[in-house]
Amino acid sequence: MLFSCLPSGALKELGDPAAAVVVDLSDDHRADPDWVYGLTEYTRAELPEATRIANPGCYPTASLLCLIPFASAGLIDGPVVIDAISGTSGAGRQAGDEYSLASLTGSIKAYGATVHRHVPEIERGLEHFGGMNATVSFTPHLAPMARGLLVTARAKLLGELDDAAALAVLESAYGDEAFIEVTDQWPETKALSGSNRASVSARVDARAGFLVCSCAIDNLGKGAAGQALQNANLALGLDESLGLSAVGVWP
Amino acid sequence: MLFSCLPSGALKELGDPAAAVVVDLSDDHRADPDWVYGLTEYTRAELPEATRIANPGCYPTASLLCLIPFASAGLIDGPVVIDAISGTSGAGRQAGDEYSLASLTGSIKAYGATVHRHVPEIERGLEHFGGMNATVSFTPHLAPMARGLLVTARAKLLGELDDAAALAVLESAYGDEAFIEVTDQWPETKALSGSNRASVSARVDARAGFLVCSCAIDNLGKGAAGQALQNANLALGLDESLGLSAVGVWP
Amino acid sequence: MLFSCLPSGALKELGDPAAAVVVDLSDDHRADPDWVYGLTEYTRAELPEATRIANPGCYPTASLLCLIPFASAGLIDGPVVIDAISGTSGAGRQAGDEYSLASLTGSIKAYGATVHRHVPEIERGLEHFGGMNATVSFTPHLAPMARGLLVTARAKLLGELDDAAALAVLESAYGDEAFIEVTDQWPETKALSGSNRASVSARVDARAGFLVCSCAIDNLGKGAAGQALQNANLALGLDESLGLSAVGVWP
Amino acid sequence: MLFSCLPSGALKELGDPAAAVVVDLSDDHRADPDWVYGLTEYTRAELPEATRIANPGCYPTASLLCLIPFASAGLIDGPVVIDAISGTSGAGRQAGDEYSLASLTGSIKAYGATVHRHVPEIERGLEHFGGMNATVSFTPHLAPMARGLLVTARAKLLGELDDAAALAVLESAYGDEAFIEVTDQWPETKALSGSNRASVSARVDARAGFLVCSCAIDNLGKGAAGQALQNANLALGLDESLGLSAVGVWP
Repeated sequence: MLFSCLPSGALKELGDPAAAVVVDLSDDHRADPDWVYGLTEYTRAELPEATRIANPGCYPTASLLCLIPFASAGLIDGPVVIDAISGTSGAGRQAGDEYSLASLTGSIKAYGATVHRHVPEIERGLEHFGGMNATVSFTPHLAPMARGLLVTARAKLLGELDDAAALAVLESAYGDEAFIEVTDQWPETKALSGSNRASVSARVDARAGFLVCSCAIDNLGKGAAGQALQNANLALGLDESLGLSAVGVWP
Repeated sequence: MLFSCLPSGALKELGDPAAAVVVDLSDDHRADPDWVYGLTEYTRAELPEATRIANPGCYPTASLLCLIPFASAGLIDGPVVIDAISGTSGAGRQAGDEYSLASLTGSIKAYGATVHRHVPEIERGLEHFGGMNATVSFTPHLAPMARGLLVTARAKLLGELDDAAALAVLESAYGDEAFIEVTDQWPETKALSGSNRASVSARVDARAGFLVCSCAIDNLGKGAAGQALQNANLALGLDESLGLSAVGVWP
Repeated sequence: MLFSCLPSGALKELGDPAAAVVVDLSDDHRADPDWVYGLTEYTRAELPEATRIANPGCYPTASLLCLIPFASAGLIDGPVVIDAISGTSGAGRQAGDEYSLASLTGSIKAYGATVHRHVPEIERGLEHFGGMNATVSFTPHLAPMARGLLVTARAKLLGELDDAAALAVLESAYGDEAFIEVTDQWPETKALSGSNRASVSARVDARAGFLVCSCAIDNLGKGAAGQALQNANLALGLDESLGLSAVGVWP
Repeated sequence: MLFSCLPSGALKELGDPAAAVVVDLSDDHRADPDWVYGLTEYTRAELPEATRIANPGCYPTASLLCLIPFASAGLIDGPVVIDAISGTSGAGRQAGDEYSLASLTGSIKAYGATVHRHVPEIERGLEHFGGMNATVSFTPHLAPMARGLLVTARAKLLGELDDAAALAVLESAYGDEAFIEVTDQWPETKALSGSNRASVSARVDARAGFLVCSCAIDNLGKGAAGQALQNANLALGLDESLGLSAVGVWP
């Protein structure tokens, strides 16, 4: 059993590791048909047999968890506009004055190119798990906090839906999930800190004709190590929640 | 000369104050044709004669400053999707456990209804200053910082534009402005803290066919007291920048 | 089994609860000879028989853990000067503008009177567990963080001791403890967040003739709920570390 | 007119600069009798003639401002125990993972050796300006904030003094100073952010026989650039407060 946390490209270059089960946290194999894409709640059936698991990125995890139920139900259409806000650990453990507390505290900004490397991963996921062929416009932001990740997504609403019906779609998708909480409040990152929980919600912006959905995760939990463990547990035939908690550290 | 910082509705109820010049920071008179809407850079011609000035909201100020140049040039079409992120002073000086440092530090969340009271103000501004009739879908977020406000807006791009051309549109609109900085970086709130500066930028998401523009302000500076003073200076025949700085406190 | 988290004075007023074992987190019974003072590492022998346990305060816990070994060894003399710095959850869950993120972020200050209610508790502990009769001068500070507590204490050094020998005193006291880490670095609160761990260290200020010792805890962990659980485990005959972790959430 | 912000040692190595007036912010010349030690409020008489000014360190500035009045009045005796807490910009503009927001947010710790390089500077200042020969034991701490510095000092109290009398000593020393505020509250760093103001207070810990005094400054204001400008203004025959403010940015 190997968890690979190498930078993008490094594992691919090393070649296939000599381990019965590999969970790769990089994006090397997320589009690779020989690897299972480990968005656990959607690939639970394949994971017990899986030996090569590509762990989803933190942004795609949060984006897909709140969008797929609506895509699957045929309730939304593209383009999908996603804003994402991450704590600074999303960039890994970084030196550099631009990551210093002095430079970052009290500051919010967008970052990166308009075509973030996670965009194709999100589009693939929407198609694969939601049967939806849509273009995604994605803007990541950096927030002055160590961990936590929030996605707010908007998509054109098809059909008549109100807030309660939108929540019901999420309830129906995730009502039985141990690590996904459906809430009628806006999800917030704090309550999830240190846990494997994702918190999802949705509302309808009837004036503009949009569905607005949101997902909060701990980028180091459900967005990385937590989901990796969840996937490994299934691949090893263990209890899915072994070593994982849905309860974060608060405050 | 009166600056009114009463809660929404209170000034209207009190009746017209006995002051030669009134700058009202609430939203009581922002849609009132007898008051000048004080988005300074766009109403500078009217301000020297103005005696009743409705100071724009912080969210509309940031949203309009980055969108109007593209609307005026006929380069974008609605619906416009706006994500805004504000420090906690955007809610005023608040008691309440939900505003405590313990509850907010390390946390990001959306808040409010899908129809925020600032939406009509933004739509009016786009029409009035940009000649654009568009629906706005607006989602405000609360970030763990005392002050600072960031807007990221997306609108359907009309015509062919690349990043450089998008920046040139902003440069052409604001190149001579003392308090508006056009940057090819993503605007960030920190550098503006304590100042009356707005920082604007734009990029093209060619894949999705969107213009992405962003504006950072200090919600208490250009988003409130700073712009109020800028407007008052003009109404009183003083130098527009009296008592104001474009340089913030950093770090 | 009852954990009482009532404000000071409330449990005493209610009278003795109808529970086989009571752990009281207030300071009602910390000087009461009928209650065991639950500084676990020093009262472990009494806890299995205990039915009434007064859980130590967060400041006394951190102060005593780093001072007692030197007091017991006769290596220090009073007065003892203690500076303590706490995150804002040390004040409980608070409304009030003075606890808001806007008021507290970026700010450090001392607070309270020069005679904090924890001073007698620390002096009693030094005498009871360390056989040292000393006056304590204690200044608490509030830091812009949700949780975490740091104590830096200085006492007149008796005899010849260097840094290594000072550390050896702590090692000898805590080398076998699961929840107390002796470090040759300055203890920091972050690494302990969410855990029941205390981190202690000491150095000699030979120029001034002082021992300088420091202890970091999570004020909500070893400083409150963690130690309460540790005590309850022992009182109930369970494994002392049941439900507790020495590993915090980082970053 | 030259402001030198070189690292310690560099200016000395370069030799005397070809400038009529030099303000050196390093500690190269703070013990040099040919340079004026620029603790403005105490060397105001010498500054108009000064051509070489050694700007005090941030820790000595805050320590001396709250201690000198009591030393001068013969009201305190050593050893003096000083705890100081600084925001991270006190270390300069730093890369390095240990200065990252992820590593520092939510964390407090002491740092450095027990003999910080500022200790002799503080002892010299106490002797020179306060006529007090005392050993200082100094422990600096790093707080999760970008700027701001707080000193809490304790010294053996000589004679009978209560809180009001202690405050009166500070009032008498600083009542006419534009940049020093005497407060009966504990000084806090936030209110001073971006300003040249120092806030001082004092209380008596009668039980322990200590004077407790405290000073808050912006480490980049009165603790560095602000005081440098204040000194330069005097050396150049300008108004002492030119370009300086006693009002900070809040919140």
